[in-house]
Amino acid sequence: MKLKEQILPADLAQQIGARLILKTNLNVTGINEIHMVEHGDITFVDHPKYYKKALESKASFIIINSEVECPDDKALFISDDPFRDYVMLCKKYRPFESLHQNISPSATIGEGTLIMPGAIVGNHVSIGKNCVIHPNVTIYDHTQIGNHVIIHAGTVIGADAFYYKKRPDAYDKMYSCGRVVIGDDVEIGASCCIDRGVSGDTQIGQGTKMDNQVHIGHDTVVGKHCLFAAQVGIAGVVTIEDEVILWGQVGVQKDLTIGKGAVILGQSGIMSSLEGGKTYFGSPVRDHREKLRELALLKKLPEVFDKLK
Amino acid sequence: MKLKEQILPADLAQQIGARLILKTNLNVTGINEIHMVEHGDITFVDHPKYYKKALESKASFIIINSEVECPDDKALFISDDPFRDYVMLCKKYRPFESLHQNISPSATIGEGTLIMPGAIVGNHVSIGKNCVIHPNVTIYDHTQIGNHVIIHAGTVIGADAFYYKKRPDAYDKMYSCGRVVIGDDVEIGASCCIDRGVSGDTQIGQGTKMDNQVHIGHDTVVGKHCLFAAQVGIAGVVTIEDEVILWGQVGVQKDLTIGKGAVILGQSGIMSSLEGGKTYFGSPVRDHREKLRELALLKKLPEVFDKLK
Amino acid sequence: MKLKEQILPADLAQQIGARLILKTNLNVTGINEIHMVEHGDITFVDHPKYYKKALESKASFIIINSEVECPDDKALFISDDPFRDYVMLCKKYRPFESLHQNISPSATIGEGTLIMPGAIVGNHVSIGKNCVIHPNVTIYDHTQIGNHVIIHAGTVIGADAFYYKKRPDAYDKMYSCGRVVIGDDVEIGASCCIDRGVSGDTQIGQGTKMDNQVHIGHDTVVGKHCLFAAQVGIAGVVTIEDEVILWGQVGVQKDLTIGKGAVILGQSGIMSSLEGGKTYFGSPVRDHREKLRELALLKKLPEVFDKLK
Repeated sequence: MKLKEQILPADLAQQIGARLILKTNLNVTGINEIHMVEHGDITFVDHPKYYKKALESKASFIIINSEVECPDDKALFISDDPFRDYVMLCKKYRPFESLHQNISPSATIGEGTLIMPGAIVGNHVSIGKNCVIHPNVTIYDHTQIGNHVIIHAGTVIGADAFYYKKRPDAYDKMYSCGRVVIGDDVEIGASCCIDRGVSGDTQIGQGTKMDNQVHIGHDTVVGKHCLFAAQVGIAGVVTIEDEVILWGQVGVQKDLTIGKGAVILGQSGIMSSLEGGKTYFGSPVRDHREKLRELALLKKLPEVFDKLK
Repeated sequence: MKLKEQILPADLAQQIGARLILKTNLNVTGINEIHMVEHGDITFVDHPKYYKKALESKASFIIINSEVECPDDKALFISDDPFRDYVMLCKKYRPFESLHQNISPSATIGEGTLIMPGAIVGNHVSIGKNCVIHPNVTIYDHTQIGNHVIIHAGTVIGADAFYYKKRPDAYDKMYSCGRVVIGDDVEIGASCCIDRGVSGDTQIGQGTKMDNQVHIGHDTVVGKHCLFAAQVGIAGVVTIEDEVILWGQVGVQKDLTIGKGAVILGQSGIMSSLEGGKTYFGSPVRDHREKLRELALLKKLPEVFDKLK
Repeated sequence: MKLKEQILPADLAQQIGARLILKTNLNVTGINEIHMVEHGDITFVDHPKYYKKALESKASFIIINSEVECPDDKALFISDDPFRDYVMLCKKYRPFESLHQNISPSATIGEGTLIMPGAIVGNHVSIGKNCVIHPNVTIYDHTQIGNHVIIHAGTVIGADAFYYKKRPDAYDKMYSCGRVVIGDDVEIGASCCIDRGVSGDTQIGQGTKMDNQVHIGHDTVVGKHCLFAAQVGIAGVVTIEDEVILWGQVGVQKDLTIGKGAVILGQSGIMSSLEGGKTYFGSPVRDHREKLRELALLKKLPEVFDKLK
């Protein structure tokens, strides 16, 4: 997320009680997770495995738990607990706001848009023109919705990312300060859940349609004109390119890409990136034709065993 | 759906700007999708693959994108875009109505029925006697519910069909004007979704019970005394006969029939019609015993490979 | 459940019209299903298969449909329909209460806890300190929630058990009079469903976190610091020990135990108890490494068939 006002690095160091090593003239202009960082952003890293990625990222400011050398044009904040400090900053600069009525006075709602009874529209939400938000939908703070969008009853847009840090005796919650951004002409079925980004945006591209009970994790980016059938589950940080079709109950693991126009048959499980333009089936998923051949051979397995005896 | 008032074929032709070929004395008395047509109905067909089905159906009036010969006792409306015209008629004769309070004044609610806080009851809904509609349930317009029905919190009855026409650059939405019809003594768990028919009725037979997070697609007809465990997903236009048991997370593809008394074990995937009275398992589903035999053989696969070496 | 006031066995026999055989001096102090019985409880049994279990259980009072010998220190209620009588007692001693406003006046809500618009808090519910109950959540009667708990939008806590008795021409509903008890520091995602116990408690242990659209059946006991990813489905009467991780869309059958620290990969199906400390995969689930070996061999199946020809 971008900050409303810049922060001086020295002020920020004081806020989190960290030692500052400064090799940049910039001020802090954004707070972002390592996947989402841009020039001017602050991020955090707390595992040696990811030090290199963080130090070579676009982030200008890094909270880190080691006295590594500070790259040029960056600043380091040396901290005993970068995760704790990062969460503290997120909470400070995008504080959780309560809601005292069904539609927040800070929400913007376009002409011709219908908000049905029981729907909840959070703080700083923006909804475009000619949308229908059906009953008992919940739209969390900061969500952005385009024009001609339909959201069916009971759907939840913008709940927190499922993201925790394992401590010796507990899971510590990451504070989600990102958003959900929904393009024009999107239709979302009933009882779907689309989580907000951790610091960036979960995005649903223009013209994409989804059936009921679909789950989409944090920071996932869905392209244009995709079709997701009922009960599809997509983890976080997934990229789904344009015109992808996922049939019912398909599951998609985190941090992978499904190429343009891929078609995934029902109940398949996707564990790694898939090339576009092809049809897939199975859990774990394979090329559709290969999988069918395998299933045909499986039926002949009793024969094989008989022959071997 | 049946029309409240008959329409003269010539008037209808004018409304959609189509050329009329008339070989019937009937007036238009209903609007229905090809799966659901009856005598007096208007339907549409826009693909040569389905011309024969439409022309030989019970529909008396057909919107079609080709100058085919008009069968006796029917009328054709020649149109460059039958889908667009059909959707336009549906919208005209069953217009979308807004809702301004939790329970529509046009809803009928039987004696002894309890509507809990946060539940939304749409326009022209009918609910029988001694029902319990738990909090935050949403019941869309025109839904019909029998007596002694229990619907748990968060469930959505009557959301639109997941039905789009692919255009070169977008998906065009079919307008759902059908209903959900729920028999007596049905119990529906929490956070379930039962979509309305496109033009006909999605039906849940008397005494059927379903657990939480079940999805049932448009125009699916479920028989009496069925049991559906949690997270079952059933696509559209499925026929499930009486006393069928679907265990947890079973997925059912569209346009097929599951015979009376069939039992489908958990996580199975059903891709084609199944005979009644048997037990099935697997994705894709097979006879339960065959599947268990296959699984046993699979465990011996390493042996086979060793022998072959 | 425990009774607020003791009942004399003779009074209870009269209420249900059963013949009493009395070999105890105790009064009835609780009503519980056979899985949950304690000293002083009344339970029921109506199938010879379970007579022994009931007669040797901790229950002091048993409604039974046979003239068996009464064990010492127990009492029998001879009835032609123990299920009917048991349900009648449950309804009498924990009657269903209606709710006339979003938050019941009998609910107790701790300091610093935020109840968002559209959330429903039932009768006799207790919620601890510093919780956030997001919009459109439904919390059924008698639910107990600890401190620092977050429940995301649309989630349903405490709906009825999916539990019916098959009669020749219908399913008879068990009346759920149990509770859901949620420990401190639990976070529950959006659109989850956690059913109440039939007579005891469905429990979620301290520090457990779950993503969206998770289903948990009646009387299931979940340990501390578990992680459940989206769309996990867990049947009733399951024991999940501490620190278990279930990835997305995992299904768990009823009446089994998953040992401490087990990790189950996505879309797996669990049909019997699993030892802790291991990683599992597949439907039906197997040791993760064995399953991967099997999948690798499956890809070579065409080879095997070629060799055999």
